[in-house]
Amino acid sequence: MSEQTSWANPLRDPRDLRLPRIAGPCSLVIFGVTGDLSKKKLLPAIYDLANRGLLPPSFGLTGFGRRDWSNEAFADFVKENVQAHCRTPFRETTWNNLAKGIRFVQGTFDDKAAFERLSQTVQELDRDRGTRGNHAFYMSVPPSAFPLVSKQLADSGLAKSSENAWRRVIIEKPFGHDLESAQELDRVVSEVFDPSSVFRIDHYLGKETVQNMLALRFANSMFEPIWNANYVDHVQITMAEDIGIGGRAGYYDGIGAARDVIQNHLLQLMALTAMEEPVSFAASDLTAEKTKVLSAVRLPKDLGAYTARGQYAAGWQDSQQACGYLDEKGIDQSSTTETYAAITLNVDTRRWAGVPFYLRTGKRLGKRVTEIAVVFKRAPHLPFEQTAVRELGNNAIVIRVQPNEGVTMRFGAKVPGAAAMEVRDVSMDFSYGRSFTENSPEAYERLILDVLLGDPPLFPTTKEVDLSWEILDPIEEYWSTLGQPQPYRSGTWGPKEADDMLARDGRHWRMP
Amino acid sequence: MSEQTSWANPLRDPRDLRLPRIAGPCSLVIFGVTGDLSKKKLLPAIYDLANRGLLPPSFGLTGFGRRDWSNEAFADFVKENVQAHCRTPFRETTWNNLAKGIRFVQGTFDDKAAFERLSQTVQELDRDRGTRGNHAFYMSVPPSAFPLVSKQLADSGLAKSSENAWRRVIIEKPFGHDLESAQELDRVVSEVFDPSSVFRIDHYLGKETVQNMLALRFANSMFEPIWNANYVDHVQITMAEDIGIGGRAGYYDGIGAARDVIQNHLLQLMALTAMEEPVSFAASDLTAEKTKVLSAVRLPKDLGAYTARGQYAAGWQDSQQACGYLDEKGIDQSSTTETYAAITLNVDTRRWAGVPFYLRTGKRLGKRVTEIAVVFKRAPHLPFEQTAVRELGNNAIVIRVQPNEGVTMRFGAKVPGAAAMEVRDVSMDFSYGRSFTENSPEAYERLILDVLLGDPPLFPTTKEVDLSWEILDPIEEYWSTLGQPQPYRSGTWGPKEADDMLARDGRHWRMP
Repeated sequence: MSEQTSWANPLRDPRDLRLPRIAGPCSLVIFGVTGDLSKKKLLPAIYDLANRGLLPPSFGLTGFGRRDWSNEAFADFVKENVQAHCRTPFRETTWNNLAKGIRFVQGTFDDKAAFERLSQTVQELDRDRGTRGNHAFYMSVPPSAFPLVSKQLADSGLAKSSENAWRRVIIEKPFGHDLESAQELDRVVSEVFDPSSVFRIDHYLGKETVQNMLALRFANSMFEPIWNANYVDHVQITMAEDIGIGGRAGYYDGIGAARDVIQNHLLQLMALTAMEEPVSFAASDLTAEKTKVLSAVRLPKDLGAYTARGQYAAGWQDSQQACGYLDEKGIDQSSTTETYAAITLNVDTRRWAGVPFYLRTGKRLGKRVTEIAVVFKRAPHLPFEQTAVRELGNNAIVIRVQPNEGVTMRFGAKVPGAAAMEVRDVSMDFSYGRSFTENSPEAYERLILDVLLGDPPLFPTTKEVDLSWEILDPIEEYWSTLGQPQPYRSGTWGPKEADDMLARDGRHWRMP
Repeated sequence: MSEQTSWANPLRDPRDLRLPRIAGPCSLVIFGVTGDLSKKKLLPAIYDLANRGLLPPSFGLTGFGRRDWSNEAFADFVKENVQAHCRTPFRETTWNNLAKGIRFVQGTFDDKAAFERLSQTVQELDRDRGTRGNHAFYMSVPPSAFPLVSKQLADSGLAKSSENAWRRVIIEKPFGHDLESAQELDRVVSEVFDPSSVFRIDHYLGKETVQNMLALRFANSMFEPIWNANYVDHVQITMAEDIGIGGRAGYYDGIGAARDVIQNHLLQLMALTAMEEPVSFAASDLTAEKTKVLSAVRLPKDLGAYTARGQYAAGWQDSQQACGYLDEKGIDQSSTTETYAAITLNVDTRRWAGVPFYLRTGKRLGKRVTEIAVVFKRAPHLPFEQTAVRELGNNAIVIRVQPNEGVTMRFGAKVPGAAAMEVRDVSMDFSYGRSFTENSPEAYERLILDVLLGDPPLFPTTKEVDLSWEILDPIEEYWSTLGQPQPYRSGTWGPKEADDMLARDGRHWRMP
């Protein structure tokens, strides 16, 4: 694409009256800058933001790592990864301007002197580039490193905001592995950073997904009247992956599917589905409603019957043979870590009493999909002959979170020209991708910009994280008394236990 | 397609457990057999039914007309039209069998001897082909001929059913031009035929449409809770044609759009949209509910403000120049016949009080479309900023009757990646054609088969016809006091009066 194309800068589009907000003078420091996340997502997102004109001209970018790199060597590394993964066209002018603010600090997390050098580097940026003391720290490192990095930042005077200059820290899930560790983590981080400066992000459950859900439920009049226990039979929330643990044995083993996915993504999706209408979409109002839902969750009494665990066995995935979890590199033959988890929750509110929420997640399932299916009761009376409705299921509204974000509605329609009246399920579909010409920015562009703008993210507060662990801890405790999870063949939809869990209620999982 | 393909006979499909019902021994007599309807629709439909194995092997088909034809000459005429218009493949075996039962009776409607010959012909069919005295008479003639043909049938003993043999008569709309003439027509026909033997058909509002609506509303749980005045703002029912009157000046002038379309099609569609759930889909139960709706209709007090008339002027239709109504061949320069009519109706029931039903129809409009749009109120509160919902309209469920039968839902969704939260209307769509592989039979195949099976059609009873005229008569009477209808350019969406009618209520017509 030529240099002349102006689409990359929305400011130049005279049709767009909604001026995009541009970050003020600031810099970003990345810990773990040579990691996969940084290379594939963070660095390209920073370039794309610059290219879209959304970063200040004086923006600073500092890498912190063990390699013995000069600023220039690091800049080459950034450029290489930007060119490989950027979403918008690579333009030398954008790059040259961005490169001027690129720095590298060599060191390890336990090296006090390195953090002193980091402090000097950001001060130089303030002086040379005019970043005015506004600095964000991206912890692209394992949670176990949070306490040490936080302490070093505090000790070198980097963590405290002043009246005129902000400091912010970005941490990604997991936020602990149970209630106790989550609270400890929170204690460590909030000793160093002001709670309003801590940006807990969850790239998976993007702000886009949250806002889509808010728009669907509350900008329309058609869905809310039936969005309750009078009409809804049950809700299924699914996050299925078609891959195994890959090289993440060290992280995954001992954590498992429930802690990895249900505690954060699925409980957040559930809260968005079940919550009352917030007073406004300010983060605080939204949090208040999500917190109410999480507080109202009640676990089923019989955890044996209403939860299910599985561990993938060998099988076929997309015509490729796949090994079982216990044969993955780095996994102990006796590991009891679940790679599939399904749980049943009740939400004890007037709106939802009696409507089970079924949450499931797993690796090496039939396909990669995240969706929320609101399944409706059948009509109380069908004035049709039995034969007419034999092939009729329940009505459903399915919100696809990924891939191909959109909404599907399933309902019954008459089969044309059938000899007798005959009703069968059909579906209608809406897809964001097909319906809008707008180019959807990468989640990380949005997330990083929100942090630099100081826009409170729509992600879990400490309170929500704690409540989510309170829901999960008793289940994990129960599971820890059991032996091996039930094996399921790779490429299938999980263990029989999970099917039994729904069959017990006369229901079945949707095939997404 | 080869003779071996068996799809034409659904009996041979072992998957189909719903046995199609096949007409018993009988014959059909067509009056007006050389007319367009007969040539293009009736004769091909009869062949297609035979080809699908749904007619008895002994079926008889008699043409009645003025031409001096032998049975063989008439059979050639039938064959020619079947080959030109049949939907299923032409097969000599089917044709040869059908041809054995083809007869022709030469005569005019006032010729008593001709009806005697007709009587002898059907008796011969009973004897030679085994039609067992079961005969249906299709009045493919102008309504003005109904009394005479009915009387002749009665006088020659053809009209009365006996215990073992049925006689049925098929008449098409218009059923009169006002309440009085409709009642007179009914009196004439019911003097001769038993009311249960009179099949009033309306090919336009096919049984398929009625059944689609029933399935959509009553086989699902998702729509009925919002199908009432609490959630619905108003309903728009549109039948738009993109053609002028063509060669039908003689029929159309003095009748106009309201009598031609609103009295039958649109009031029936309204009744199907507004009715309560029937106890069953038996014709009698359905009629009971439709009748209740028509009885509950209240006209607005100010007919000047809440009805609109128009007459097409010259303009462009699909890049072809089109003349005005007054310049059509056979139309008097001072004709006040409306070619566009729009009316506002209230349905005084608990379900619909306060929800206006806007009905409109016209010739030479922007495109050919028939649809029912249920337009919902906006959400009582939108927790969005004003700027976010600027481009948001009302939610709507649109039932497309033709072309491309299906359902569209319109609702608001978030614009992906917008700098600020922004909600815009999107739509999702279901199409019978795309969703089902079933081949939809022609309306006339279905209609003729229903008559031969004695299946009460889902069409207006005398009571419904009368109620519809009671609704329309005061409007026609009011219009008759006005002068020329407001002209509108061909190819546009009707007169300004019609836009004003909705604008008065702060609403506007959908662009279909």
